[in-house]
Amino acid sequence: MHTGTPVAVLGLGLMGSALAGAFLRAGHQTTVWNRTTTKADDLVARGATLAESPAAAIAAAPLVVVCVSDYDAVTAILDGALDGRVVVNLTSGTPSRARALAEEVVRRGGSYLDGGVMAVPEAIGTADAVLAYSGPRPLYDAHESTLRGLGTGLHLGDDPGLAATHEMATLVLMWGMLDGFLNGAAIVGTAGVSATAYLSIARRAIDTVAGWLPDYARQADNGSYPADDGTIDTHLAAMAHVVEESESLGVNTELPRLVKALAERAANAGHGGSGYVALMEQFRKP
Amino acid sequence: MHTGTPVAVLGLGLMGSALAGAFLRAGHQTTVWNRTTTKADDLVARGATLAESPAAAIAAAPLVVVCVSDYDAVTAILDGALDGRVVVNLTSGTPSRARALAEEVVRRGGSYLDGGVMAVPEAIGTADAVLAYSGPRPLYDAHESTLRGLGTGLHLGDDPGLAATHEMATLVLMWGMLDGFLNGAAIVGTAGVSATAYLSIARRAIDTVAGWLPDYARQADNGSYPADDGTIDTHLAAMAHVVEESESLGVNTELPRLVKALAERAANAGHGGSGYVALMEQFRKP
Repeated sequence: MHTGTPVAVLGLGLMGSALAGAFLRAGHQTTVWNRTTTKADDLVARGATLAESPAAAIAAAPLVVVCVSDYDAVTAILDGALDGRVVVNLTSGTPSRARALAEEVVRRGGSYLDGGVMAVPEAIGTADAVLAYSGPRPLYDAHESTLRGLGTGLHLGDDPGLAATHEMATLVLMWGMLDGFLNGAAIVGTAGVSATAYLSIARRAIDTVAGWLPDYARQADNGSYPADDGTIDTHLAAMAHVVEESESLGVNTELPRLVKALAERAANAGHGGSGYVALMEQFRKP
Repeated sequence: MHTGTPVAVLGLGLMGSALAGAFLRAGHQTTVWNRTTTKADDLVARGATLAESPAAAIAAAPLVVVCVSDYDAVTAILDGALDGRVVVNLTSGTPSRARALAEEVVRRGGSYLDGGVMAVPEAIGTADAVLAYSGPRPLYDAHESTLRGLGTGLHLGDDPGLAATHEMATLVLMWGMLDGFLNGAAIVGTAGVSATAYLSIARRAIDTVAGWLPDYARQADNGSYPADDGTIDTHLAAMAHVVEESESLGVNTELPRLVKALAERAANAGHGGSGYVALMEQFRKP
């Protein structure tokens, strides 16, 4: 028994398959398409309809979710008429390409929301999965209840490039955090401590840093960096220790070296006595 | 009215002053020393006793907390007899220097705990402040109730180097996370989005990544990296996008470039189809 808006999902990689599966679970009539049709077998067994072409899938549903490898694949797929179609593009890409694609979709009679998925495929369809969208607010509001089947939705603004901008930003944050965790696990590993044993202290460190961020964000916005909780110079001394000791432990030094180089530049710019957020000015520069 | 063990705090920087203040609040007779004596004024007004020399402070209390700028300062301060003294060294340093200092303190009749403070000075004295200690377990147990006045204590093991090893590891994690956040804030800033507006999505990303870590830690320990939630090759494609778009936005590209270089090395080592944790092998290498 189908309820709600019929949907089409183009692209059945790990993420696309999870999206289509979540729509099926939420009771939507779901049409799918993938270049390699065997990837649809499991979804078809669960009630999805396999379309023979992207155009056939687009014809079958007013809401079309696209999740393929890159924007070249998106433009190849969306090559026909899009009259009255709402294209929700969850393919990772850049803000400029999202804006250009939004214009193109509108030119061909459709409307466009861009989106970024901040979740692993397993989380799709649960509230833990966060999907950030950008594009016209009334369009998002009209389809919010359908999109809710995929996870928790956030509307970032009318500029279709905003989802990709935020996705870039959160990716850098996620990679910085993951690389920091793996580097830390490599360090404690030299003392015979497992990554699992390191985990509890790492989680506390993450919670501690997360607790600083509201104040740090305000400092970044205000451009003033009080050193109440330690100066860049203090961090630099610790960074020098960590680089030196990482060398003697025989683990990778590239991440602490980069962190130190950035802090040195902030100190050279007169911020040695400022708080850590003064580094923001370095990240704003090419 | 003083209760519990009399304590001495050597070094009254931001952190040392916070430590001494917490001991005073917990009711301990607290002796303090600092090279620049004016830094003690506020603590003396709150009931602390100012010692004229490190030796006088050490003579005044069986438990001596040291929190100065570096290990050279620690060894300069601890130059006399230490009979029956428990030295708790919270100065940041390296595992090898912590082990050497532990031996030296024992040789001079004292006993030694090393510690790392994972908190900002403002949090000291609350359960939110985590202090990780290493050194003989019976020694830690004997003084755990006194040290609890500083925050939540964790004993990492008997090797006195373990606290410094964990501190190094968590510093790299914290810097990776902070730099990732500031870099992300710089990216959204190019679209006119404030760091404060970015915060809610950044916090969700942090929670998401933190939720992956137990599984990732197990993968790191097992040396097997299933790609259930995305391959290194998929990450590499996104890293290339982020580097390219960061260039066109005019923001710093060093952190994404480093992240990408490490992932490329993992892919070249045959892990393009593996999950992200395969990067662990790169961090274990010099």
